[in-house]
Amino acid sequence: MRHLISPLDFSVDETNDILALAGDIYRYPEKYKEICHGKKLATLFYEPSTRTRLSFEAAMLNLGGSVLGFSESSSSSAAKGETVADTIRVISAYADICAMRHPKEGAPQVASMYSEIPVINAGDGGHNHPTQTFTDILTIKELRGKLGNITVGLCGDLKFGRTVHSLIQELVRYPEIKFVLISPDELKLPEYVKTEILDANNSPYTETASLENALPELDVLYMTRVQRERFFNEEDYIRLKDTYILDMPKLAHAKSDLMILHPLPRVNEIATEVDNDPRATYFKQAKFGVYVRMALILRLLELA
Amino acid sequence: MRHLISPLDFSVDETNDILALAGDIYRYPEKYKEICHGKKLATLFYEPSTRTRLSFEAAMLNLGGSVLGFSESSSSSAAKGETVADTIRVISAYADICAMRHPKEGAPQVASMYSEIPVINAGDGGHNHPTQTFTDILTIKELRGKLGNITVGLCGDLKFGRTVHSLIQELVRYPEIKFVLISPDELKLPEYVKTEILDANNSPYTETASLENALPELDVLYMTRVQRERFFNEEDYIRLKDTYILDMPKLAHAKSDLMILHPLPRVNEIATEVDNDPRATYFKQAKFGVYVRMALILRLLELA
Amino acid sequence: MRHLISPLDFSVDETNDILALAGDIYRYPEKYKEICHGKKLATLFYEPSTRTRLSFEAAMLNLGGSVLGFSESSSSSAAKGETVADTIRVISAYADICAMRHPKEGAPQVASMYSEIPVINAGDGGHNHPTQTFTDILTIKELRGKLGNITVGLCGDLKFGRTVHSLIQELVRYPEIKFVLISPDELKLPEYVKTEILDANNSPYTETASLENALPELDVLYMTRVQRERFFNEEDYIRLKDTYILDMPKLAHAKSDLMILHPLPRVNEIATEVDNDPRATYFKQAKFGVYVRMALILRLLELA
Repeated sequence: MRHLISPLDFSVDETNDILALAGDIYRYPEKYKEICHGKKLATLFYEPSTRTRLSFEAAMLNLGGSVLGFSESSSSSAAKGETVADTIRVISAYADICAMRHPKEGAPQVASMYSEIPVINAGDGGHNHPTQTFTDILTIKELRGKLGNITVGLCGDLKFGRTVHSLIQELVRYPEIKFVLISPDELKLPEYVKTEILDANNSPYTETASLENALPELDVLYMTRVQRERFFNEEDYIRLKDTYILDMPKLAHAKSDLMILHPLPRVNEIATEVDNDPRATYFKQAKFGVYVRMALILRLLELA
Repeated sequence: MRHLISPLDFSVDETNDILALAGDIYRYPEKYKEICHGKKLATLFYEPSTRTRLSFEAAMLNLGGSVLGFSESSSSSAAKGETVADTIRVISAYADICAMRHPKEGAPQVASMYSEIPVINAGDGGHNHPTQTFTDILTIKELRGKLGNITVGLCGDLKFGRTVHSLIQELVRYPEIKFVLISPDELKLPEYVKTEILDANNSPYTETASLENALPELDVLYMTRVQRERFFNEEDYIRLKDTYILDMPKLAHAKSDLMILHPLPRVNEIATEVDNDPRATYFKQAKFGVYVRMALILRLLELA
Repeated sequence: MRHLISPLDFSVDETNDILALAGDIYRYPEKYKEICHGKKLATLFYEPSTRTRLSFEAAMLNLGGSVLGFSESSSSSAAKGETVADTIRVISAYADICAMRHPKEGAPQVASMYSEIPVINAGDGGHNHPTQTFTDILTIKELRGKLGNITVGLCGDLKFGRTVHSLIQELVRYPEIKFVLISPDELKLPEYVKTEILDANNSPYTETASLENALPELDVLYMTRVQRERFFNEEDYIRLKDTYILDMPKLAHAKSDLMILHPLPRVNEIATEVDNDPRATYFKQAKFGVYVRMALILRLLELA
């Protein structure tokens, strides 16, 4: 039995298989609409994450399966002091597969050790969020036709943003990807990510503090939020925040086939005027998030 | 693509079509039980409203479809600062139709502007609650055989009660309806409703402070709650509240085919002794609420 | 129309029928997987109980039915002051059967008096929790082949533990069951249970404060939690709590076919080292909990 705890649990070949399956689902959804009939997904969300939860639920419903679970820990047995190990053994009696979101790093990993059903990590603290990463690369692959041979800009909070670290870790496995790291000094990509992931895979990268300067060379721009609480003082925050807001004037210098991604929710780091530009891809990402989760459910249940 | 934000979004003809469809569902539910197979309803409840939410969910399940969503905003992305416009664009990737309840007036309207799926307003602040209004008129139509040519008493808080204003706005579109407005002075129907809706449609109405006096002439009595917090002082509240409690002694003077409606929940404005009287129609209303929501889902999805 | 409020609502014959049906479901689940197609279960949980709620939901989904409801009262109409009697009359319009959990004793009983659909008590305060009791006896029956002719140890908080009282009340109806009551003095089985249930049914029992001494003669050990808040002082709690923790050294003296049960959630009263012992049955109980709820839903809906 397989679980999905970290994106790297799957080899490049296995990942490509999943992306191919997700692509097939995207093109021929009708083929898959009854394949999970009689199967149940448990959504165990120890902290709220509506978008991720509903994406999993939509995925299972699209496959003809059904869903049960909880959306925050106040209504779970955790409040009564039950361990994740005990909970998952009970849930194994109720469902065929589960998606777990937990504020503590490693909780889904622990669950997978005791589970009788496949466990999908739906985000654990600041650690892994593999289905987001798979969503990101599926979106790039499907909308460009292939993965690789692109320049990817990562903009915003590169220090704490887990989705960025995960995405880098995944993308270095594909050929000819060049990274442009765009952030204020305070929120630069940590050294260990540069040495252990980028350098270790001979992945070329440049660093810059200017989104405006970086934009012209990018094929993909991955935006993230610059959170006020990450700054030591309000002054720095106010000085810097506008630099990392994507708007139409900045976009004037970008390629016409740039793909703008964002893990969402967006607060103000992308001006709403950008939403109607054909390069805005972040709402389309949501659809690919459903397809990739459908593919993962099918693969882990060994139904495709 | 159509949405339902205000009851007046549908013309009288369109409304009659929906009532006819709801009536057919009521009589032949079996015909409709698989028609939404594979379709998903998202229930986006930014404030709790169990009755309304479950009524929508029952409606979709009765049609063979499935449901996902959230029941209060604490477990939604709104807590992370996402706008309704962004949320609905993501939800459009997850579901085929949605019902939105929101404490802010106009939120479902905004959502409908950005949505790729039909949006049904399930109540927005003190503003509109169109599915309640359709429930009310369906109940009258089905149980009397027709709409029109009746005397409708509206009792209780006519000043702040949104369901009452909506119902009046809907009923004035039907022929020969006479209104009796029953309330304490403090909670009388606002002037603009009288002039802009009743007078503008040449709808006859009388006003009275006495439920007892009004009862004998009524064909329909629509009860609402008199909330303590609406009164300037406790004294007035205590003096007035009993006047607007419907009990068996007051009912002695009513017609034998009077239809007593209430949007529920009821607190104490209808004595429980009335529940077993054949004129008590408020629990039957709940069933018609499901039928009318089934009809609306079918119509907005263009499946009937 | 039947309801399930107390385990004793069913005669021994009826209970055996339900256990037989649950056993058949356990062995041939495929036979039952579409039998509730088009039926809806409402889970009305006025207090959170994730395990019980999900067990009911899994049961209905396994039968091909669907589920709606709420998982805590903050999102229910109860917050608006609606009575259980009114709520159930409305829910009767939305669902075909309901499971109600309520912090107040007797609430499901009241609901059943006004309901148009079968009501299953899913736990009411410190009162009844019949589906737990049925789960317990089904587990014993299925895994031993029969009910009766066994020595059952009940360990821990026998004073306040409702599951224990319910289980005793049920087991005395079966032949040749001997009870060993294992608890600290402070938490002994109440006198009225001894006289009105055990003595009244001529059921033999012994009392002891020592789990260790009792273990060798037991066929079934039912563990419950010793809660800190039940003790008058911390000293007594610390002195006593370890005595009632089941671990491998204590198990050395037990029969090789002992069956260890626990209603869950477990905190620390069973050491995790016991989990891998074949005598640990408490996680298997969860599966039987689903089968027995499937049987109850079928029987109350008169579908089997």
